[in-house]
Amino acid sequence: MRKESQLLRWIFWIVVITALFFLGFIIGWFAKPTHPNSGDSSDSRHYLREFLDEMRPETIRQHLRSFTRLPHLAGTEQNLKYAEQIMKEWQDFGLDSVEMVPYDVLLSYPNKSRPNYISIVDANGNEVFNTSLAEPVPEGYEDVSDIVPPYSAFSARGQPKGDLVYVNYGRTEDFFQLQRQMEIDVTGKIVIVRYGKIFRGNKVKNAMLAGAKGIIMFSDPADYCADGVQPYPDGWNLPGGGAQRGNVLNLNGAGDPLTPGYPAKEYTYRYSFEDGVGLPSIPVHPIGYHDAIHLLKNMGGKTPPNNWKGALNVSYRIGPGFIDDFKSHAVRMNIHTINQVTRIYNVIGKIRGALEPDRYVILGGHRDAWVFGGIDPMSGAAVVHETVRSAGRLISKGWRPRRTIIFASWDAEEFGLQGSTEWAEDNAKLLQDRAVAYINADSAIEGMYTLRVDCSPSLHTLVYNITKQIASPEEGEEGMSLYESWHKRDNWTNDRDAPRISKLGSGSDFEAYFIRLGIAAGRARYTKNKKTERYSSYPVYHSVYETFEIVEKFYDPSFRRLQAVAQVRGGLIFSLADSLLLPLDANQYADSLRKYAQSIAHVGQMHPEEMQMYQVSFDSLFSAVENFTIAARGFHERLETLNRVRLVNDQLMYLERGFIDPLGLPGRPFYRHVIFAPSSHNKYAGESFPGIYDALFDIENSVEPQRAWREVKRQISIAAFTVHSAAMTLTPPARAK
Amino acid sequence: MRKESQLLRWIFWIVVITALFFLGFIIGWFAKPTHPNSGDSSDSRHYLREFLDEMRPETIRQHLRSFTRLPHLAGTEQNLKYAEQIMKEWQDFGLDSVEMVPYDVLLSYPNKSRPNYISIVDANGNEVFNTSLAEPVPEGYEDVSDIVPPYSAFSARGQPKGDLVYVNYGRTEDFFQLQRQMEIDVTGKIVIVRYGKIFRGNKVKNAMLAGAKGIIMFSDPADYCADGVQPYPDGWNLPGGGAQRGNVLNLNGAGDPLTPGYPAKEYTYRYSFEDGVGLPSIPVHPIGYHDAIHLLKNMGGKTPPNNWKGALNVSYRIGPGFIDDFKSHAVRMNIHTINQVTRIYNVIGKIRGALEPDRYVILGGHRDAWVFGGIDPMSGAAVVHETVRSAGRLISKGWRPRRTIIFASWDAEEFGLQGSTEWAEDNAKLLQDRAVAYINADSAIEGMYTLRVDCSPSLHTLVYNITKQIASPEEGEEGMSLYESWHKRDNWTNDRDAPRISKLGSGSDFEAYFIRLGIAAGRARYTKNKKTERYSSYPVYHSVYETFEIVEKFYDPSFRRLQAVAQVRGGLIFSLADSLLLPLDANQYADSLRKYAQSIAHVGQMHPEEMQMYQVSFDSLFSAVENFTIAARGFHERLETLNRVRLVNDQLMYLERGFIDPLGLPGRPFYRHVIFAPSSHNKYAGESFPGIYDALFDIENSVEPQRAWREVKRQISIAAFTVHSAAMTLTPPARAK
Repeated sequence: MRKESQLLRWIFWIVVITALFFLGFIIGWFAKPTHPNSGDSSDSRHYLREFLDEMRPETIRQHLRSFTRLPHLAGTEQNLKYAEQIMKEWQDFGLDSVEMVPYDVLLSYPNKSRPNYISIVDANGNEVFNTSLAEPVPEGYEDVSDIVPPYSAFSARGQPKGDLVYVNYGRTEDFFQLQRQMEIDVTGKIVIVRYGKIFRGNKVKNAMLAGAKGIIMFSDPADYCADGVQPYPDGWNLPGGGAQRGNVLNLNGAGDPLTPGYPAKEYTYRYSFEDGVGLPSIPVHPIGYHDAIHLLKNMGGKTPPNNWKGALNVSYRIGPGFIDDFKSHAVRMNIHTINQVTRIYNVIGKIRGALEPDRYVILGGHRDAWVFGGIDPMSGAAVVHETVRSAGRLISKGWRPRRTIIFASWDAEEFGLQGSTEWAEDNAKLLQDRAVAYINADSAIEGMYTLRVDCSPSLHTLVYNITKQIASPEEGEEGMSLYESWHKRDNWTNDRDAPRISKLGSGSDFEAYFIRLGIAAGRARYTKNKKTERYSSYPVYHSVYETFEIVEKFYDPSFRRLQAVAQVRGGLIFSLADSLLLPLDANQYADSLRKYAQSIAHVGQMHPEEMQMYQVSFDSLFSAVENFTIAARGFHERLETLNRVRLVNDQLMYLERGFIDPLGLPGRPFYRHVIFAPSSHNKYAGESFPGIYDALFDIENSVEPQRAWREVKRQISIAAFTVHSAAMTLTPPARAK
Repeated sequence: MRKESQLLRWIFWIVVITALFFLGFIIGWFAKPTHPNSGDSSDSRHYLREFLDEMRPETIRQHLRSFTRLPHLAGTEQNLKYAEQIMKEWQDFGLDSVEMVPYDVLLSYPNKSRPNYISIVDANGNEVFNTSLAEPVPEGYEDVSDIVPPYSAFSARGQPKGDLVYVNYGRTEDFFQLQRQMEIDVTGKIVIVRYGKIFRGNKVKNAMLAGAKGIIMFSDPADYCADGVQPYPDGWNLPGGGAQRGNVLNLNGAGDPLTPGYPAKEYTYRYSFEDGVGLPSIPVHPIGYHDAIHLLKNMGGKTPPNNWKGALNVSYRIGPGFIDDFKSHAVRMNIHTINQVTRIYNVIGKIRGALEPDRYVILGGHRDAWVFGGIDPMSGAAVVHETVRSAGRLISKGWRPRRTIIFASWDAEEFGLQGSTEWAEDNAKLLQDRAVAYINADSAIEGMYTLRVDCSPSLHTLVYNITKQIASPEEGEEGMSLYESWHKRDNWTNDRDAPRISKLGSGSDFEAYFIRLGIAAGRARYTKNKKTERYSSYPVYHSVYETFEIVEKFYDPSFRRLQAVAQVRGGLIFSLADSLLLPLDANQYADSLRKYAQSIAHVGQMHPEEMQMYQVSFDSLFSAVENFTIAARGFHERLETLNRVRLVNDQLMYLERGFIDPLGLPGRPFYRHVIFAPSSHNKYAGESFPGIYDALFDIENSVEPQRAWREVKRQISIAAFTVHSAAMTLTPPARAK
């Protein structure tokens, strides 16, 4: 009896123990997440806060001071030295790896022994006026050597002589007006145009197409001086002796002109200069407004329309040539600029992702500057530097992002986005398969008013979320978020109550990533008040007056605006790299597509008879957008219940890729994004549905309307297909019965 | 005391219980795999065995019988009926989803009221001889209507009249020899060439380039009859009244000629016929050897070189024109073929992957046939059908593959791979991101000797593994594996002891997947003995004599050869879809690249002086291959220890994509694979390094050798870059410090 009872007791306890073991086992089994680290978002939020708080105005100030002491044009020794400094400091900050990546690309410099200038010559060929050979050097920099004088990089060499014709901003429509309404032919003439409105390379191309044998570009005070502001150093306006440097290529995304489509490595085949991409065939030169007065003041010919007049005290007559007293005078350009293959250096730093090392989030901005680069680009480079420093601090505390973060200091942006494009070409395969997003870091400030963000629609939501976690840098806005401050100053103009976010254009290093490879991209900087400040970019743009002091004295004395920009750029990178689910929004893309489709259809519908005659319809595009909208909605609804994180993240990552047409836009094989690209008429402005836009633009001046409208139809069909394709990437990959 | 002891006892038990619970919890936690189903490979092996064993000769025979009763040319009602039948049966077999996917593409048919033929006309314009309007119908099919007569699809319409010139096979080198050595100009002449050696479309292009105004192609017994074999129905040789249909496009991968680059949907913009891709501008017509005798027997002019002579009892004189007695006779072609946009139907069936539904393994083959399609393509379609049936059986037993499997029945392959290309264009974005491999399923048999496999080097190892698990279908080889049987009959010719595997060329539906999109691809079929059987393809190719009976009587009476092919194709699909680690081999790719590099360098080195003069070197290519080899070796070594399956599988999947150049080969935007593509001179033959190959080919006939050699250098540089790029895809994605 006793034995039995003991046996029963033993059995009882064994059963209990076994049951408990299994209970534990089962709870353990189910307690363990299938996806490691899916639950760490509070950790991640905490680290994000630390990451943002670690970025400080004073250190940004130090970086900017350190990066702007000497001129560091691409291809020069000083720019290599800054690269080495950045590499070393990134290593010290704690990145996993930092490397220097060189390419040998075509750059362009003035000939040191034969300066470039423009003359007015009399009937005997005597130079009666010459433009200045350099800008007056700003105080404190008198002993600096190696300041490159204002020039147009990649100008053709030559000394063309001829009569001047003034063509306003040199836009396509300005040349149309000149040729059609004023009936002036510029063949064999030298054209003079003012800077502004469009990319200077497009002005040069238009002049070439019109038959001009040279082109002079000047900065008009109407476009480069703000009201009530003094010229530098007393204010931040462009002095009369200042001029805008810049390249005049028409690359359309090719990068190095001699190695389009391939990285400019040692073994790479190079085209001859004649076959290079986008090199102008005529001399080009930039001047300031003091010099411009001399060229313009005696011009004769037709009086200009009012909107062709700038703010100089001259008549802005069109020409050709000078008024009676100076009829025998002509203008001669003397351009001796030299193109040469030169080594450039990108600095690439990485933090390896803990869980998805094969997913890349990139923060890249250029380092090369025309002179000191106080604003362009070092205000941006200082911000990137601070971001790297802050990330390094987190790493030292044990943090590691889910995905790999890549930091880049690009070279030779000023010569046609070359460093960034060559690296994109070099790594195209990897980037196409693995890149989640690219955040650009050019100049961090161009005004003192509020935030400016241009980005892919998929990033809108994230931008709003991040800016809500950052403090306004403005005085008197303590306790207000950057979002609120921004919202107050620049509300969305159309259909929703949120701060304005614009389309990406081109003209900075995101181009190859976004427009060629289809990687979601964005940029953020501090900007001016668009409504009241009508000047182009910022007045001292690309002049010797872009110094550390102009930032410290005028643009951001407290360095809190740069801090805010650093926090935006850094916050975007952090969230993209560390969120379990990628913070990309397909619904927002759908909304934007609808707006763009309405807007481009509106342009077409300005020709109702022709639309009917040639049977052009936007219906297929609208129905593709509708289909995309449904797919996006379905996708985000399924996100709630799906647990295959990698699968849905891949769908989100590849969404932007869905808009890439491998065939490229007509005649522009490296501009492949069907939704966003610059128009053919201005590299700076991002157009939506650029293929349709350009086709509609060409309607205006086509001698074969039938062919032109056929091209509109073809482009609508391509756009509709592309939107359908992108929608496909959002649908479930396959269904079980 | 007692109380204390009880308390202690309680404490003891609580501790024990808690400890046991935690032990259970911990064991449960660690017992649960992080990657679900990572350990099921013995299950998978077991299912593979069942899958292979389920495929049966008798059912394959039934499928083939059912699919070959009626002619089913693309675009006809009967071919839609077969599509519907296949769709229904695939549903019944148990696929998760089956859908019909239509496109509207350009097809080409004879004009039913004006037959195509060729005449000899006398001086008065009387037709003294006309070629036959149809092939003699084989026994048993006398009552069948809708047998399309032999024609060249997409021929231009017209009735050109002129003297005949015989140009052997119509290859580039044949036309060179004609023009340079024989000094015969074919401008305004009608050329007659024999079928064989190269794709017929290339013959037509060569004739057009040479200035001919028409081209006739005939099947010479030297190329379309095997020794000691009777013509059908007594044997499997081509009867004298049989002729080879076929399209004569030069599409270079464009698919539908009117919608290159985009799927031919309802809303898609279509080019006009004049702007369509690859449409010949001259009339083209195929004839059998009985008719050919009449055209050739009285030809005059030069006597031919020996290798221009076929096996007919005629002189094979070159012309132009006829011998003295018939000098006044000329040849007139009467071609009234009509191009028209026509709806075609792909059938797409899917099995959803259990664990990686967003990874696709594709088995696709065409359904449309010139007439009955006894061999081409229904021997292949029957095999796919059996594969689907067997997969359905497994599903009913609870199996589900790791990845999604897609089965495709393509339409309009015979008209330029249109069904498969349009679907690839439609789904390009998804395929690029998600497709693991594409296995092609055209004709499963073209001879009675042994297995033939053409595939990407990354698939070699898998092909060997699978064929070792399949039985030889040959009589007297019981107990021998297919691998052993194959190895015995067709040993690797060069450097290793294994059965031969060849490069993929083109001419079937894998083209868009492999050459445009860069998806690892392969094909397998039963073939002839290449060493002893010298005829082109198989004798009755594209004639009315491709019946069910020719397979049943001659090619595979037991249907065990088709069974073996089904098992190879099915086994590949199964392994690619179900293996935890993708069975793709980067090391093998490295070995193949080295061989190809040596071989193409060898071609260049046949011009040693010019190589030196123009500073052409293959060193950069060899060093890229070396770099790739190291990357591949490192990758496979790391596989041993890595546990991120999805990451390394993505690397393997994207390896083939690494060889794609988005810019395409020169002038061929849809041929983008830098390692494999047909040469410009023969679509059928896959060349390795096709860009370099074509550039070297052009050396021979370039009037500007410097420019030609520059192109060689450019192509070497592109190849080296591409191999470096592909190597990059294999390296670790990022390193921690």
